[in-house]
Amino acid sequence: MSKRHKKLEVNQRCLPDTGSSPGVIYLDDSSLEPKLTLHRISGAQYTSENIDSFAGVYESIKTTKQTFWLEIKGFKSLPMFDLLQNEFGINKLTLEDITRTHERPKFEEFETYAFAVSRMLMLNEEKELENTQVSFILMDNALITFQEHYVDCIQPVRDRLTAGKGTIRIGGASYIMYAVMDVIIDTYIEILGGWGDELEEIEDRLMDKPERSIMYDTQLIKRHLISIRRVAWPEKDKINDIMRSDSPFIQKQTKIYLKDAYDHCIQAIDLIDSLKEISVSNIDMYLSMISIRMNEIMKVLTIISSIFIPLTFIAGIYGMNFSREDPVTGKLMPMNMPELYSPHGYLYTVIIMVIMAVLQLVYFQKKGWFK
Amino acid sequence: MSKRHKKLEVNQRCLPDTGSSPGVIYLDDSSLEPKLTLHRISGAQYTSENIDSFAGVYESIKTTKQTFWLEIKGFKSLPMFDLLQNEFGINKLTLEDITRTHERPKFEEFETYAFAVSRMLMLNEEKELENTQVSFILMDNALITFQEHYVDCIQPVRDRLTAGKGTIRIGGASYIMYAVMDVIIDTYIEILGGWGDELEEIEDRLMDKPERSIMYDTQLIKRHLISIRRVAWPEKDKINDIMRSDSPFIQKQTKIYLKDAYDHCIQAIDLIDSLKEISVSNIDMYLSMISIRMNEIMKVLTIISSIFIPLTFIAGIYGMNFSREDPVTGKLMPMNMPELYSPHGYLYTVIIMVIMAVLQLVYFQKKGWFK
Amino acid sequence: MSKRHKKLEVNQRCLPDTGSSPGVIYLDDSSLEPKLTLHRISGAQYTSENIDSFAGVYESIKTTKQTFWLEIKGFKSLPMFDLLQNEFGINKLTLEDITRTHERPKFEEFETYAFAVSRMLMLNEEKELENTQVSFILMDNALITFQEHYVDCIQPVRDRLTAGKGTIRIGGASYIMYAVMDVIIDTYIEILGGWGDELEEIEDRLMDKPERSIMYDTQLIKRHLISIRRVAWPEKDKINDIMRSDSPFIQKQTKIYLKDAYDHCIQAIDLIDSLKEISVSNIDMYLSMISIRMNEIMKVLTIISSIFIPLTFIAGIYGMNFSREDPVTGKLMPMNMPELYSPHGYLYTVIIMVIMAVLQLVYFQKKGWFK
Amino acid sequence: MSKRHKKLEVNQRCLPDTGSSPGVIYLDDSSLEPKLTLHRISGAQYTSENIDSFAGVYESIKTTKQTFWLEIKGFKSLPMFDLLQNEFGINKLTLEDITRTHERPKFEEFETYAFAVSRMLMLNEEKELENTQVSFILMDNALITFQEHYVDCIQPVRDRLTAGKGTIRIGGASYIMYAVMDVIIDTYIEILGGWGDELEEIEDRLMDKPERSIMYDTQLIKRHLISIRRVAWPEKDKINDIMRSDSPFIQKQTKIYLKDAYDHCIQAIDLIDSLKEISVSNIDMYLSMISIRMNEIMKVLTIISSIFIPLTFIAGIYGMNFSREDPVTGKLMPMNMPELYSPHGYLYTVIIMVIMAVLQLVYFQKKGWFK
Amino acid sequence: MSKRHKKLEVNQRCLPDTGSSPGVIYLDDSSLEPKLTLHRISGAQYTSENIDSFAGVYESIKTTKQTFWLEIKGFKSLPMFDLLQNEFGINKLTLEDITRTHERPKFEEFETYAFAVSRMLMLNEEKELENTQVSFILMDNALITFQEHYVDCIQPVRDRLTAGKGTIRIGGASYIMYAVMDVIIDTYIEILGGWGDELEEIEDRLMDKPERSIMYDTQLIKRHLISIRRVAWPEKDKINDIMRSDSPFIQKQTKIYLKDAYDHCIQAIDLIDSLKEISVSNIDMYLSMISIRMNEIMKVLTIISSIFIPLTFIAGIYGMNFSREDPVTGKLMPMNMPELYSPHGYLYTVIIMVIMAVLQLVYFQKKGWFK
Ligand SMILES: [Mg+2]
Ligand SMILES: [Mg+2]
Ligand SMILES: [Mg+2]
Ligand SMILES: [Mg+2]
Ligand SMILES: [Mg+2]
Ligand SMILES: [Mg+2]
Ligand SMILES: [Mg+2]
Ligand SMILES: [Mg+2]
Ligand SMILES: [Mg+2]
Ligand SMILES: [Mg+2]
Ligand SMILES: [Mg+2]
Ligand SMILES: [Mg+2]
Ligand SMILES: [Mg+2]
Ligand SMILES: [Mg+2]
Ligand SMILES: [Mg+2]
Ligand SMILES: [Mg+2]
Ligand SMILES: [Mg+2]
Ligand SMILES: [Mg+2]
Ligand SMILES: [Mg+2]
Ligand SMILES: [Mg+2]
Ligand SMILES: [Mg+2]
Ligand SMILES: [Mg+2]
Ligand SMILES: [Mg+2]
Ligand SMILES: [Mg+2]
Ligand SMILES: [Mg+2]
Ligand SMILES: [Mg+2]
Ligand SMILES: [Mg+2]
Ligand SMILES: [Mg+2]
Ligand SMILES: [Mg+2]
Ligand SMILES: [Mg+2]
Ligand SMILES: [Mg+2]
Repeated sequence: MSKRHKKLEVNQRCLPDTGSSPGVIYLDDSSLEPKLTLHRISGAQYTSENIDSFAGVYESIKTTKQTFWLEIKGFKSLPMFDLLQNEFGINKLTLEDITRTHERPKFEEFETYAFAVSRMLMLNEEKELENTQVSFILMDNALITFQEHYVDCIQPVRDRLTAGKGTIRIGGASYIMYAVMDVIIDTYIEILGGWGDELEEIEDRLMDKPERSIMYDTQLIKRHLISIRRVAWPEKDKINDIMRSDSPFIQKQTKIYLKDAYDHCIQAIDLIDSLKEISVSNIDMYLSMISIRMNEIMKVLTIISSIFIPLTFIAGIYGMNFSREDPVTGKLMPMNMPELYSPHGYLYTVIIMVIMAVLQLVYFQKKGWFK
Repeated sequence: MSKRHKKLEVNQRCLPDTGSSPGVIYLDDSSLEPKLTLHRISGAQYTSENIDSFAGVYESIKTTKQTFWLEIKGFKSLPMFDLLQNEFGINKLTLEDITRTHERPKFEEFETYAFAVSRMLMLNEEKELENTQVSFILMDNALITFQEHYVDCIQPVRDRLTAGKGTIRIGGASYIMYAVMDVIIDTYIEILGGWGDELEEIEDRLMDKPERSIMYDTQLIKRHLISIRRVAWPEKDKINDIMRSDSPFIQKQTKIYLKDAYDHCIQAIDLIDSLKEISVSNIDMYLSMISIRMNEIMKVLTIISSIFIPLTFIAGIYGMNFSREDPVTGKLMPMNMPELYSPHGYLYTVIIMVIMAVLQLVYFQKKGWFK
Repeated sequence: MSKRHKKLEVNQRCLPDTGSSPGVIYLDDSSLEPKLTLHRISGAQYTSENIDSFAGVYESIKTTKQTFWLEIKGFKSLPMFDLLQNEFGINKLTLEDITRTHERPKFEEFETYAFAVSRMLMLNEEKELENTQVSFILMDNALITFQEHYVDCIQPVRDRLTAGKGTIRIGGASYIMYAVMDVIIDTYIEILGGWGDELEEIEDRLMDKPERSIMYDTQLIKRHLISIRRVAWPEKDKINDIMRSDSPFIQKQTKIYLKDAYDHCIQAIDLIDSLKEISVSNIDMYLSMISIRMNEIMKVLTIISSIFIPLTFIAGIYGMNFSREDPVTGKLMPMNMPELYSPHGYLYTVIIMVIMAVLQLVYFQKKGWFK
Repeated sequence: MSKRHKKLEVNQRCLPDTGSSPGVIYLDDSSLEPKLTLHRISGAQYTSENIDSFAGVYESIKTTKQTFWLEIKGFKSLPMFDLLQNEFGINKLTLEDITRTHERPKFEEFETYAFAVSRMLMLNEEKELENTQVSFILMDNALITFQEHYVDCIQPVRDRLTAGKGTIRIGGASYIMYAVMDVIIDTYIEILGGWGDELEEIEDRLMDKPERSIMYDTQLIKRHLISIRRVAWPEKDKINDIMRSDSPFIQKQTKIYLKDAYDHCIQAIDLIDSLKEISVSNIDMYLSMISIRMNEIMKVLTIISSIFIPLTFIAGIYGMNFSREDPVTGKLMPMNMPELYSPHGYLYTVIIMVIMAVLQLVYFQKKGWFK
Repeated sequence: MSKRHKKLEVNQRCLPDTGSSPGVIYLDDSSLEPKLTLHRISGAQYTSENIDSFAGVYESIKTTKQTFWLEIKGFKSLPMFDLLQNEFGINKLTLEDITRTHERPKFEEFETYAFAVSRMLMLNEEKELENTQVSFILMDNALITFQEHYVDCIQPVRDRLTAGKGTIRIGGASYIMYAVMDVIIDTYIEILGGWGDELEEIEDRLMDKPERSIMYDTQLIKRHLISIRRVAWPEKDKINDIMRSDSPFIQKQTKIYLKDAYDHCIQAIDLIDSLKEISVSNIDMYLSMISIRMNEIMKVLTIISSIFIPLTFIAGIYGMNFSREDPVTGKLMPMNMPELYSPHGYLYTVIIMVIMAVLQLVYFQKKGWFK
């Protein structure tokens, strides 16, 4: 990871306009045309078809004993939401929450349905973190899921429905909701695993050489961790709420599975906390290495300067041009630099210089500067 | 944002004088003349008029089935507060809270009314944060709102009353109170969005060049965030209190909407926390960049000094004037700087100097100082 | 504020001797002679007299329908405490708490009275924070207050009794207790306001020039804030305890006023937290300015050294005295410093020096060191 | 401890594949063949045998009054888990938790059994921390324990069974479960003791010489402490859950022993917290010593440079070659460096130099730089 | 306090061997022979005798109406513990807790007795903190206390028994237990007072001169504070548990006294927190002073270097030996250093040097470096 400056979006755009009425369906230019898929599930049978409209589906749900899963991806159709409000009896505040895709994970019970929100985290091809919303409307024998975009991470659930093993076809609508939520939480752990690898790689680089990018990259992961933590905590609370609710739409059997998802969610939080610790530790280590480095640079400078500056001064002394003779009178001035005219002046000077240098080296050695 | 030193006011002026009686209306020189607006609302009909006095309004409220919303802006009228105390039966402690405009968000129930406080945050033209109080007195079919100043951010509520769509005309007094509170919270999120943009811009500048203003600007935003957090938390608690109260003045239907406002409030707090994280991260990054910078400056100094100071010393040596002849006796003193009289002395000296410089460069290269 | 080193006393002196019996009246050399004031209060009438002893007062309290407020300042009289124990029936542990004046704010209920402690904070003339104890014994129609020293901040309560307006004369003993506590909390906010001003002044100085005293002064205020916070939190809890108690000595009416005092206490805590934030922010800013400053000093040093040290080396080179002639044989040694004998040697040298300096300046300019 | 770079594994590998069905037995290439040991315990008698399969054991458990402890080490046998699911009636989610060996400590009650997880920490021969899972299935008169690997730290329990003293043979299945959990917690404290010794040794090295490895080693221990804390906290909660459960499989007598284990667990947490404090203190001390060191290095550099650089300048002045005579006209130029021709010029210069040096030494002395 | 390196023991030695049976009496080589003292207390009478064995004492306790206090110091006698287990009916887990002297403060109720642990803190002659355990077994009319060593801080309780004043002889066994616990808590506060004085003394030294020992000494006190805090918190909880228990062994009257001890415990915690704040503040101040100091050193270095290095360069220039005459041809080379042959060359050079120095001084002055 060495893109230098990948910012973390603090996305606040999709919130309602200040002062707008509550309960307004939010659609903007980037809204996608809805793609609808209807899954009809019973123990032995399972069909899945892409449909154009779900007019009549409510009737079918009410009168058939099968389990229905209606997937809605893309919201650009006001009549669709009218149908949900009028035929399915979904509260308009719920519909707004579905289309304002920045809700926190939550679980709300209504008379004829239960409403839940999960946040789906995925890494796109540029390895950027996408944080999108999956909304759930759970009824007696039907589940409706809502996603703003077409891409998702829940294909495994569809595959398991096709394969038909295990509880997936006989667990009812609430089991399918659990299955989707569970995939989403599993994806958290998968993403965290990737960051864990990045952190180890950064740690290796840190031991190699404390370069500036270590700080950037670690800070970026730390921020991502903080942001994913803010998703994982309400997710945990939401799962707990579902487990403890006595909504008639949640089968007792499903609650045992939800407990398992709850454990995974806590494991995700544990992993986040561990990785955050490692981030902080990397940053602290890095800052300490910078300090140590400065220390070493200063030691080199000080040793060299301290040894040579005094020696250079002595050389400078004997480079002075004080005259031995008065140039006018020619009189001898024996006080002016007599050393220069001593037969061993140069030798003695060099010896003194060597002694000075050695004394300093001994001093620095004693101070432990060479260790 | 580059005003250098925009301080955050820690306003403690409007609190009661030490030891004054409780329940005293607080008016000072900056108090404004009251502007009164009376909204009469029923499903089909809606009128809004500016009135001079609300004598007789209480009578009207008691006897009419309409919903009333009385807006009071500006407090400079003691008779007005007498009327509220004596005719409307408002407790004098409540009236003091209305005029001491530094209350925290809270919800209090009395026998004949409920009292609530919101804090309205707005950015004025100089982009300074204004933190003013909106007080609510909620009765059976009437809402009274109080503001110290004329400017506010709740125009959307009045517009929705005029437009008449949705629940606004039929939700009763408590729905209007909700609508005002909701606009106020929406404004929090709008302001936070602006700071989020500023933080991103600061982050860009940081990557460019770590200049001192980054510290100032980030600290200022961080402080604002801390101060807005201190408003958002009791706001959240207040909304929760209203939702959970069984005051007869809160319609059951309104509570569903309050839950929505509660979600927004939590989203605001989430956003505050995210932005605070980014602030702290920016500051940490900035401090680390200063350290790195110092490191680089020291490296330049050390490389140049370490290479040239020893060389200069050698040059100094051979600049000494030790005499080859005794100037008096003319005797040769061959020990004094014989190098100067060697045919290739200069050449050897230069070669030694080059070797010394190269050795040092290799040493620094090996230490990784050129990376 | 520029007294450099005003320490915060961590006073632990007044606690009982290790292992002493509980319930022993604590008097030391600095104890003052008691000054007693007896206020007799009824709606219309109010008298206040200094008395020498309160023998007989208990009788009077029991038999009269008036409200009594007995102020005791100074504890140096064991018979007085005997009277309280034997006639008024005050527990000896309570009496010890009254005389060990380092109790935390608390509220305790006994069969025949309630006991409360407030901590009175005042700034003395040297602007030092005095933290003294006010103890309350509350009975049916009587309040006894205890203070160790003569100076206090509750004169406004006495003035309001004299003026006789509002609830003060008709609220009963518990209202007077509330009134005293309220003044004490108001004084907290007043003191905090003063520190807020000091912090703003320090912030101005900080922007001017980061001098050492900024650290001292801010740390001192921060410590004071931490210490006042340790008083304000149990104070808040105490007021809450009183509000929620069903002691017969607390009138229902008083509880509404206590709620107001509770709000003020929370506002005080909010203010403490805000000021603490500002302190921390000032300190962080100061430390960052020191770092920036070091950076600038290092830049000046590095630029000057890096430019002139190499140039001085070159000058040193051509200051060497390598001889062109063998002084003995007179033979020419053309390898020894031929540059010195080139007609434009000096000119070329100076040009090289200028180029070197310019190159370095360009390098530093590019590094952004001149910005 | 001086391996430089012993990383802490953040192991996320053993979690279920994203989107897989819940309740799937997890076996991978490193899974080991199961080793089964069956302990049959009654007051007087105790036998322990390695068995190949536990077909029939369930029958035996149901019909015999003895206490059974079945140890299963290694999971590579799907038929074994089928047996557990079908004959013993173990839920498949429980079986998955047993094989996904990254569960947090927890206690779950089912109709026919109770399920518990402990995390066993051991130091291997390379002194690396191994964190493996021990799972417990507790039935009326039988305990089944599950371990992924063959090595463990619970040999003392088997030894005590052999010795047969104390409660171990008569306490029932829940007592044996307690005994195993207690050994595991005791091992935590043993490991913590080792780190405590390492920290003391690091502290000694720190006082000696602040070298880089101190930071590495302390950070590593700190991270280990944080990771063990994450195990100890849910362990404590788990023991508390068992104590408070009214599961029929937990004998009342066992709960008294569990309280003792609970105390040990809290003591472990206390020890973790103490060691963490010492780690942080060591790191802070180390960073401060680096700062102090830099200070000292700078002082040496500054003293030497400040004294000799000005002196060298003076020497340089009198090394200049300004000519006393116009070389062309031979005219005397008396303004050019007359000092050089003064009889005591050299002496005076040296005296001035000494005075300058002494003045600087006095200045530095006064600044306290030699202390 | 200037012993440099007084380490805080993190004592984990006395915990049970990993995997040992619970309820084993722990005796090691340093165990002391038991010293037994039996106090027989009734209102008027009080005897205290050293006894050799307490065989028969249980009988006496059961049949006499006096209050008994049996002090046991030193544990080296297994028969003694047998007696306690068999005759007094003390659970073997309790006996283990008594001999494993690293228990946290706790209170446990059994059918025939209550068990409590306090931690006694004392400073020994070397001013090192000793942290030993006092265990209490409380029965109807008897208290047994256990200490590992002979030295303790509870002599005042024995003195008060001898003096016989106050409640000590008539409060029963639970009052004596309270009295011992109270002395222990009072000793905490006494020790904290001593550290408070040390911290003030360190603060004075800090203002004087920021020397390295300040960091050591403050860190040591801070660690001690953290460690005493870890004792004081469970102590507080323990006292609260005793107050709230409805054990028949705690007289109602004693609970009022326990409330007083509880207040002292909270005061101790407050004092710990205050002292910790002061420690942290001292450390922060110290680190900031080191930074400021570095700043000043750098300023001196930079001012001197920046002024003299360029001047020395100029002197170096005019010390070069470029020849005015071609030594071979004797031709004049007028471009080589003509300044040297100008009549006022030296004067002008000196003037230029002075101007350069003055300009730099003005620049530094403007930067505020001389303030
Ligand atoms: Mg977020
Ligand atoms: Mg965790
Ligand atoms: Mg966690
Ligand atoms: Mg970790
Ligand atoms: Mg840190
Ligand atoms: Mg507030
Ligand atoms: Mg605020
Ligand atoms: Mg959130
Ligand atoms: Mg949040
Ligand atoms: Mg939050
Ligand atoms: Mg964030
Ligand atoms: Mg930081
Ligand atoms: Mg206190
Ligand atoms: Mg305090
Ligand atoms: Mg607050
Ligand atoms: Mg607060
Ligand atoms: Mg603030
Ligand atoms: Mg900081
Ligand atoms: Mg865990
Ligand atoms: Mg972990
Ligand atoms: Mg603990
Ligand atoms: Mg602890
Ligand atoms: Mg520590
Ligand atoms: Mg630190
Ligand atoms: Mg630091
Ligand atoms: Mg402990
Ligand atoms: Mg401890
Ligand atoms: Mg406290
Ligand atoms: Mg405290
Ligand atoms: Mg303090
Ligand atoms: Mg700090």
